[in-house]
Amino acid sequence: MLTPALQNCRLLKAARREPTDTTPIWIMRQAGRYLPEYMAVRSKVTFIELCKRPELAAEVTLTAQRVLGVDAAILFADLLPMLEPMGIDLEYAKGEGPVIHNPIRTAADVDRFHELETVDSLQFVFDAVKLIRRDLPADIPLLGFAGAPFTLASYVIEGGGSKNYLSTKRMMYCDEGAWRTLMERLVRSLVRYINAQVDAGCQAIQLFDSWAGCLSPADYRRYVLPFTKQVVAGIRADAPVINFLTGNPALLPMLREAGGSVFGLDWRVDLADGWRTVGHDVAVQGNLDPVSLMADLPTLRSRAKAVLDATEGRPGHIFNLGHGVFPEVPPDNVKALVEMVHEMGQK
Amino acid sequence: MLTPALQNCRLLKAARREPTDTTPIWIMRQAGRYLPEYMAVRSKVTFIELCKRPELAAEVTLTAQRVLGVDAAILFADLLPMLEPMGIDLEYAKGEGPVIHNPIRTAADVDRFHELETVDSLQFVFDAVKLIRRDLPADIPLLGFAGAPFTLASYVIEGGGSKNYLSTKRMMYCDEGAWRTLMERLVRSLVRYINAQVDAGCQAIQLFDSWAGCLSPADYRRYVLPFTKQVVAGIRADAPVINFLTGNPALLPMLREAGGSVFGLDWRVDLADGWRTVGHDVAVQGNLDPVSLMADLPTLRSRAKAVLDATEGRPGHIFNLGHGVFPEVPPDNVKALVEMVHEMGQK
Repeated sequence: MLTPALQNCRLLKAARREPTDTTPIWIMRQAGRYLPEYMAVRSKVTFIELCKRPELAAEVTLTAQRVLGVDAAILFADLLPMLEPMGIDLEYAKGEGPVIHNPIRTAADVDRFHELETVDSLQFVFDAVKLIRRDLPADIPLLGFAGAPFTLASYVIEGGGSKNYLSTKRMMYCDEGAWRTLMERLVRSLVRYINAQVDAGCQAIQLFDSWAGCLSPADYRRYVLPFTKQVVAGIRADAPVINFLTGNPALLPMLREAGGSVFGLDWRVDLADGWRTVGHDVAVQGNLDPVSLMADLPTLRSRAKAVLDATEGRPGHIFNLGHGVFPEVPPDNVKALVEMVHEMGQK
Repeated sequence: MLTPALQNCRLLKAARREPTDTTPIWIMRQAGRYLPEYMAVRSKVTFIELCKRPELAAEVTLTAQRVLGVDAAILFADLLPMLEPMGIDLEYAKGEGPVIHNPIRTAADVDRFHELETVDSLQFVFDAVKLIRRDLPADIPLLGFAGAPFTLASYVIEGGGSKNYLSTKRMMYCDEGAWRTLMERLVRSLVRYINAQVDAGCQAIQLFDSWAGCLSPADYRRYVLPFTKQVVAGIRADAPVINFLTGNPALLPMLREAGGSVFGLDWRVDLADGWRTVGHDVAVQGNLDPVSLMADLPTLRSRAKAVLDATEGRPGHIFNLGHGVFPEVPPDNVKALVEMVHEMGQK
């Protein structure tokens, strides 16, 4: 049950397309390497340790929200640790990003990738959620999140990040049965994992389909849409879903079909066009080019204003970047952006 | 002056949206590492040597056309050597792609980046064109090509490939004067370089804006469109331009504004939608997902058929991939694709 303070917070009102005093804003990867307060904690532990120690994950989550003055906290966590109890041997190699030592390439590999029957082994995530919710201001919602099925599948098939997704697409194209089995296991696992985040205290959930932009519309429709749709449909009805996909504006009509309350737009599309495409009967989030934060403040201001203007005064806009904030960004620019949006977004 | 055989070749007829006996096809990067005949030559020299020795560049160009049976040859060359006489210190580091040792980051750097006043130092390119045209079948056109101004600018600013284009966008956003000076020098240089390719014997020109997909529509319109438009307008009127941009379907309406006879579509957009967007009064090229070539032949066939079907029988389609062919692709699959398209494309 939501408290009245949360029920009426800016972000959740915007997600319901209700008018707000000003535009809510949060920043993807707001607890990240650009922020000295984050680095102070991060420098003492490895990335995965930070994910798995609830008191530290809570600390960086809370600090980022407080330092920036943003309208939501987002759980500090990563897309991939949920895969470990499913049989994936995951390592965060220093300076290289995640590496999966036993990637899934064949139907036989899919057989040893098992569904997440219980979320017990991910208790560290839910403990972090509880600590954060306990200490977060009463009117600040906590966002949980997870990877969308395609993005998780491409990680486990490629064994890490990828440029061209050769192995992922090869499985999709050549062994559709194995692909569907893999995606179905991810769907059921994701629904359990996400609902446990909501049970622990998250007020909304963002799905990240970070790599789906490599797909053609026909491939997204056939190989991805049915599965993302099942995840969204399986999430507790009281938790609004922010459905975010990056890298291909031509997929937006199908992102809408997949479902959600809010649709995340990256900067490749004009916000006004993107909103028209997903429909004015849903809310949108985005979509400033993250490199804007490298510019001088007057330029940053005019670029933020262009995003706000593209809403045409419609309620239901959550300001954000079109992608995560870069480590190179001066933290003062992020703080300035939050102030600018709160000032210029006043209704 | 075009010979009648060239005037009536499949590819140039399609570029003029005239009916053809079957759909013309060529493959981006058809003379590339997937092809044993290419590797036999390439293994004896460095990449840049292959670019700069006209008899070798001609050999790999001609061989690829002959072995595959495609409807066009494309000059073997690279986007970047034209930058060397402009003051850029270019190296192709082994296995790493191009590196520019003196990237352009400031207005002062732009001052030392000078316009290509004469194309004399690029004679090796025009010599290759002459050799290829001499030995190419009389009814096979030779395509020249160049990078579009944004793609070249991002190379010289980033000093090589890039993930997020931080330095490029920072110059665009923060020093628009320096950016415009840089782009204007590229425009005038490109027009000279491209027209010299046509003078030497190319029948059409493809412009590659390989990195422009990282831009928002508003940024493309303000910082890129005017310059690409000037390049297209400056190209000899008797050479059709294939204007190709990859990575963001939301930019297609502006690609059309930039001009050209044929618009290259990547696989991120349905060909039918992409054609509607650029307009049925121009031709299109594309747009099979290049990973399709990793699939079994029946799958490849059905995917190629879907592209052909998306033309709705309209003349003016040149079949191609949505991006260059990958080194991992079996050469027999490329040959099979050419045969499939010629067979299924029969009118």
